[in-house]
Amino acid sequence: MARGVPLKPIESVAAELGVPADAVYRHGPFKAKLALDWVLARRPAKPGKLILVTAISPTPAGEGKTTTTIGLGDALRRIGRRVAICLREPSLGPVFGAKGCATGGGKAQVAPMEEINLHFTGDLHAITAANNILAALIDNHIYWGNPLNIDPRRVTWRRCLDLNDRALRNMVIGLGGASQGVPREDGFDITVASEVMAILCLATDLEDLQARLGRVIVAQTRDKKPVTAADLDAVGAMTALLRDAMAPNLVQTLEGTPALVHGGPFANIAHGCNSVIATRAGLSLADYVVTEAGFGADLGAEKFLDIKCRLAGLEPSAAVVVATVRALKMHGGVAKADLKGENVAAVTAGCANLVRHVENMRKFGLPVAVAINRFTADTEAELAAVAEACRALDVEVHLCNHWGEGGAGAESLAHAVAALADGGTAAFKPLYAADLPLTEKIRTIAREIYRADDVEFPATVRARLAEFEARGFREAPVCMAKTQYSFSTDPDAKGAPTGFTLPVREVRLSAGAGFVVVLCGDIMTMPGLPKVPASSHIGVSPAGHIVGLS
Amino acid sequence: MARGVPLKPIESVAAELGVPADAVYRHGPFKAKLALDWVLARRPAKPGKLILVTAISPTPAGEGKTTTTIGLGDALRRIGRRVAICLREPSLGPVFGAKGCATGGGKAQVAPMEEINLHFTGDLHAITAANNILAALIDNHIYWGNPLNIDPRRVTWRRCLDLNDRALRNMVIGLGGASQGVPREDGFDITVASEVMAILCLATDLEDLQARLGRVIVAQTRDKKPVTAADLDAVGAMTALLRDAMAPNLVQTLEGTPALVHGGPFANIAHGCNSVIATRAGLSLADYVVTEAGFGADLGAEKFLDIKCRLAGLEPSAAVVVATVRALKMHGGVAKADLKGENVAAVTAGCANLVRHVENMRKFGLPVAVAINRFTADTEAELAAVAEACRALDVEVHLCNHWGEGGAGAESLAHAVAALADGGTAAFKPLYAADLPLTEKIRTIAREIYRADDVEFPATVRARLAEFEARGFREAPVCMAKTQYSFSTDPDAKGAPTGFTLPVREVRLSAGAGFVVVLCGDIMTMPGLPKVPASSHIGVSPAGHIVGLS
Repeated sequence: MARGVPLKPIESVAAELGVPADAVYRHGPFKAKLALDWVLARRPAKPGKLILVTAISPTPAGEGKTTTTIGLGDALRRIGRRVAICLREPSLGPVFGAKGCATGGGKAQVAPMEEINLHFTGDLHAITAANNILAALIDNHIYWGNPLNIDPRRVTWRRCLDLNDRALRNMVIGLGGASQGVPREDGFDITVASEVMAILCLATDLEDLQARLGRVIVAQTRDKKPVTAADLDAVGAMTALLRDAMAPNLVQTLEGTPALVHGGPFANIAHGCNSVIATRAGLSLADYVVTEAGFGADLGAEKFLDIKCRLAGLEPSAAVVVATVRALKMHGGVAKADLKGENVAAVTAGCANLVRHVENMRKFGLPVAVAINRFTADTEAELAAVAEACRALDVEVHLCNHWGEGGAGAESLAHAVAALADGGTAAFKPLYAADLPLTEKIRTIAREIYRADDVEFPATVRARLAEFEARGFREAPVCMAKTQYSFSTDPDAKGAPTGFTLPVREVRLSAGAGFVVVLCGDIMTMPGLPKVPASSHIGVSPAGHIVGLS
Repeated sequence: MARGVPLKPIESVAAELGVPADAVYRHGPFKAKLALDWVLARRPAKPGKLILVTAISPTPAGEGKTTTTIGLGDALRRIGRRVAICLREPSLGPVFGAKGCATGGGKAQVAPMEEINLHFTGDLHAITAANNILAALIDNHIYWGNPLNIDPRRVTWRRCLDLNDRALRNMVIGLGGASQGVPREDGFDITVASEVMAILCLATDLEDLQARLGRVIVAQTRDKKPVTAADLDAVGAMTALLRDAMAPNLVQTLEGTPALVHGGPFANIAHGCNSVIATRAGLSLADYVVTEAGFGADLGAEKFLDIKCRLAGLEPSAAVVVATVRALKMHGGVAKADLKGENVAAVTAGCANLVRHVENMRKFGLPVAVAINRFTADTEAELAAVAEACRALDVEVHLCNHWGEGGAGAESLAHAVAALADGGTAAFKPLYAADLPLTEKIRTIAREIYRADDVEFPATVRARLAEFEARGFREAPVCMAKTQYSFSTDPDAKGAPTGFTLPVREVRLSAGAGFVVVLCGDIMTMPGLPKVPASSHIGVSPAGHIVGLS
């Protein structure tokens, strides 16, 4: 579909945002990086308004968060607003695996989708290289006599590749004898799970990038002292590899709306939203910036607000919670196979999930709108059930059909969101104070957002948290890693579960990113490919077009 | 040095070659890819003349092959010729390791050197991804029941990264239990050693690329049948990842001469020269194409001629053999520490190496010139000794100082080479006929080029070669992998050794690249980092410039 739509030269898209041609570093006719120094020097008289698009807890039925973000951006532009969309950039893992592309769908897409989903402007490859030169320097240090006394059993820095490759999760490297290295356990994560990705997305300029990279903890010494990237003289090379990747990428939607697609950290062990640099660039260039955060609002939005906005001093003006009738039915207890046919009772029951997410967004001081990403099979009675549930909350529900109609299908949402953002009712505050102890930060999120009765901290976790605080990270935000499928840690507990405890299994310090990762359950940082991967349908046509991306 | 020189916009460089702006796919102001369909559609009335720059056997003293290629290109342009330079693109391994950058030196450089040496236009990252999606699909196939009956002990396809990382040479992957994969031995090569790189450099268009990728043999079944990339449905995804990387990259020298920098396979287990597509593009756009091949002429030039030129139907018009007085002294028996001070006898002795390489080039029917890449410490008597040795061969020697003076320092070489190329004396023929048995091809190279008395074939090697022939590869060229430091397999045998036998240790079929790799000695396909890697000096200045590349 996307290939038939004519695109504007990327300089025209940049010009719409007031970016001069000499600050546009083109990658072919339709992609560009904006010159980092130009972007960082922008000091607008009045920055734009930041609008977060988040969603109910994801289900296999799909919600369409990215699609809605794009549709809302297009719609705001159609009603005459100066707008920039800020999205995460795709990873090759999902593209070749099961989840597919990350460029929207239908008439609400960013383009050229083939190039954005495959290498784009090379940012993920740069992150892979920066992550892996650090890993190589660790093993090289150990090989050449190990003057820092690194304990090979306690190297926590893993290598990475931007692919789903299950077989690389756990391995023993350095085999083959004395001249081949020192054997130790290791593994690869997918690139988006690398701390380097989180750092790139939080760094405010090259100096900050460099400082953060230097703080990255990669291992412990035999006497349990932390070893950092700075200790290994890795920071300069990593910064050099990442320099160009720090510049935000500009593309356009199928309707020509400017879109900054930059950075894309995992939403579990990292904070799951696009780069601070791109968001700030958008706010300095447009009156409205529409952005999204990964997973449901309990994870993505909470981290967007408590980590990204807090650390970057961003003040969002409104939030949109996206739902589909199909997904609400699943939260109401219907299995995926039984989604066909009207089921008003299930929709009503499933709205408990939506309601809780809306309530949660308000706890951050944000005005909220609900967007129903409409499917043709949705019935009037089902849609009325959603409206009814939202009426009790005094939140507006907007039916959207941007998938089928582009921005025209999301105009009512756009009017409402613009009114919310312009209304001045937002009074953003993070959920917890920076000086709260780490355990209390976790407890606050568990109680206020997940609605857990309490949190279980194993003694080892308490000890680690105390160690992080002693090391100067008491003021750090926490980055929750739990299943995205439920407010609880049980992925099958749909809707709005109560009466559960949040078990914390493990905590890790991402000293470079500047947050404490709190693992509640098994978190996969290297996905596997399914039995028939999406890659098997992807190819190049005789005319040279990429085919089979979906 | 390079940073102070003003560069032309890349469209101007393209225009000098007659490339229209809409066939120029810019990567920023100074790098571009030329549109592949435009390049492939070129049918010039009179193609350009192809000039190979090769060298004596390398020594730690350095020869300056890339620098001479650039200097000769600049000089040809200065004397009014329409010229394109064709170079290999750099790998991050040497850039961060010990060998350094691959963009020339002094006033004979391609630019922007920082961007070319770091990610450039992403070709190597694309190759890494294509290599590794195939690897992931192998393990995924085994994981999901292994219907092809792949023997996990006989998977020959290795993963790759574009870094020097010794610890990844040998590993056991798939650890961690049933849901994490099937344990097996594996390892990573550096990306330039991947067969995908060799394929990219030999493929003539996307269709040929796809056919070659399909033929790649990745493993054997339990009953010893070959398993190919096509069997694993990997070809479409690999082609999609490589599509943009197939388009040749255009940059310029510091003097503004157009340079196509594209592809860069290892010169041991692969053929060590830039892409066929870039060379053909150069020949279709310029009157003279100056290119180089890896290592000394016994390896690089032989493979350039017997593999690349033969398979692509290229007819070179002249060859330049580069030497330095310092390196000739080392071939004459002087240790690196003792190179200071005049030593005419050592130069004369060392010329035996140069003479043999010149003789060898003539066996391919090529007229030859010798270029002395001059150092200030070279004395008149030493230079006279080189001239004397060459006089006996009736080959012209040209003193060059392109490092210090740019193209102006290589004008006499340029006049001589243009005269050779225009003289019509070239009568290129490969060294051996395609229908010679594989053992005889190897024997021909060993006797004619290396001057070995004979070749030792272990029984296992003979059996493998017979198997390759039975499988349809009797007509394939052979790709010799031996030390580059000597004509023999003993790296310490400098000069022009005789009285030795060439021991073949192992043979491998690169069915996608279309050649049989003949390993004579230990060949390293994943280098290690030195004790103090170049990476430790690389960084980004406060002004955002990459520093410390060398």
